[in-house]
Amino acid sequence: MHYARTVVDVGDGPQPRLLASADPSSGWVDVRTAERLRLVRLGATHQAAARVAAAVVPGSLSEALSVGPLFQEACAAAVSAGDAPVAASTPLVNALDPAGYRDFMTFERHFSFGYRWQGKPVPEVMYELPVSYCGNPLAFIGPDDEVPWPHYSEHLDYELELGIVIGRPGTNLTPDEALQHVAGLTILNDVSARDIQAREMTGGLGPSKGKHFACAVGPWVTSLDELDLEAGLVMQTRVNGETWNRSTTADMIWSIAELVAWTSQAEELVPGMLLGSGTCNEGCTLEIGKRLAPGDLVELEIEGLGVLRNRYGHPSGTGWTPAPRAPAIG
Amino acid sequence: MHYARTVVDVGDGPQPRLLASADPSSGWVDVRTAERLRLVRLGATHQAAARVAAAVVPGSLSEALSVGPLFQEACAAAVSAGDAPVAASTPLVNALDPAGYRDFMTFERHFSFGYRWQGKPVPEVMYELPVSYCGNPLAFIGPDDEVPWPHYSEHLDYELELGIVIGRPGTNLTPDEALQHVAGLTILNDVSARDIQAREMTGGLGPSKGKHFACAVGPWVTSLDELDLEAGLVMQTRVNGETWNRSTTADMIWSIAELVAWTSQAEELVPGMLLGSGTCNEGCTLEIGKRLAPGDLVELEIEGLGVLRNRYGHPSGTGWTPAPRAPAIG
Repeated sequence: MHYARTVVDVGDGPQPRLLASADPSSGWVDVRTAERLRLVRLGATHQAAARVAAAVVPGSLSEALSVGPLFQEACAAAVSAGDAPVAASTPLVNALDPAGYRDFMTFERHFSFGYRWQGKPVPEVMYELPVSYCGNPLAFIGPDDEVPWPHYSEHLDYELELGIVIGRPGTNLTPDEALQHVAGLTILNDVSARDIQAREMTGGLGPSKGKHFACAVGPWVTSLDELDLEAGLVMQTRVNGETWNRSTTADMIWSIAELVAWTSQAEELVPGMLLGSGTCNEGCTLEIGKRLAPGDLVELEIEGLGVLRNRYGHPSGTGWTPAPRAPAIG
Repeated sequence: MHYARTVVDVGDGPQPRLLASADPSSGWVDVRTAERLRLVRLGATHQAAARVAAAVVPGSLSEALSVGPLFQEACAAAVSAGDAPVAASTPLVNALDPAGYRDFMTFERHFSFGYRWQGKPVPEVMYELPVSYCGNPLAFIGPDDEVPWPHYSEHLDYELELGIVIGRPGTNLTPDEALQHVAGLTILNDVSARDIQAREMTGGLGPSKGKHFACAVGPWVTSLDELDLEAGLVMQTRVNGETWNRSTTADMIWSIAELVAWTSQAEELVPGMLLGSGTCNEGCTLEIGKRLAPGDLVELEIEGLGVLRNRYGHPSGTGWTPAPRAPAIG
């Protein structure tokens, strides 16, 4: 199964709609419309069918996954019936409004480079457990959205990552149990402002204003049964049409199952949480000695997950920045 | 105004209810009930009044703040009418289900200690801008809830912080504008597992499993007009009844207005976002050479914001931890 979203406006403001497909190249169906029609066929009145379909198929993928099997069954029935197709020209928006966002570092060549960039040896902890930080789930954009360029940065980058979407609750899971809690995979561009990020990270709390202004996700979410994870999925970047890397998910030193299991320790997984794999090897400009310019078109591709295409915007003019403080303690 | 929450169950599972008060020591009113009664007095039918009151006064404080002035007016009318009091014995739950959570470091004695603890000098960036990390908004507990003790830690701590609750959207704000976007202040216990935190933070991405299992907040949120911020608010910790620190918000090197303004640069503030001040001076056991034991009762008090009281639990038995990897790159 593949999950995506679009937006419609029938007079009450923009409303996201969930789409499903067995094969995105042959089109999408509107799951709520299909569920409403199915309920009418089963004997519900039109109004009751609309009310139930809206509850089972909300506009948020996180909220829909929270519904559990009823939502999954609605998707399967919608794809099977095929009676609510959307036009081929329908633009997709960000597939996932994540309930939470955790980002790991699992690609050894990339993180080894990252520590060299910071002038440090690779810390031992990187091989002891999957290290992560919490990102901002409130600034996600989708396919074809322009990447905003913050006023406080002169150096934007992309990061090509595998995104893991949690499908159902769970806590203290083992890796053997973990994949049952994954709804699917998607492409993640963990957009980064390298100048402010480098300054902030000397503080030791991780990235903040260097990351929190935007992440791109999509174009859709693909369920695990559609993918051959054993073989690894090829991960590629094209900038203005030119290929800049060719990597594979097979290089992750922690598996998808291990990332999900570790996240679940002493925490309850929430449907719609997004876990990022961390940047793949050679998956950002910093690592390959290149640099993005405003207006560049970045296309991130992962085998079986489509192409996530975003043009970078231009720096916006004005904003406030803090005035330095004088230390009182020497 | 003071905002709090309780939970009722009338047969459809636990439902949070928003409470308001002009003075918590003299009791709370149920805002949705009061709004329903007010709408009936204005001429609405009982059913329509219930429907509108549920929309204007949802059970989530983040969602309620997103309603804007209509919600604030409902609170003012409810407190003024006083016709929906709740019993004095009503237990409060976590006041805020945060839409997002950012935590800063603004108390110089505390962060200077923190870097010494890590064997590092204080980084210059700490005096250049307010450094923060994104925390996990999905694991908040409230007053009198037991603090869970993760299986992977032997060393839990509290952190006494001022919590700043965002009230309305805004972006690229100046400090002069910022306080208009604050709904109020609360007490925050940024619960920390020091052993795993120390290991993780050598990775440079900030705290993760050392923090993400729990934060406590409450007992309520107090609007700014009730407080004398110029004078500073006294911040105190008591453990098992013994006072362990006495600090003040006046020691923050970045003001509340500066923290909100910096957060808003290139990002849209979301109603219900929580910004933590970072641990106040002497506001955790690590800094004062003490240590918590399972079962300890921690009471955090900030002048005008009440007392946040939580007993620490006992380590839960089992879980999965990752097996180390062998580095492939020297």
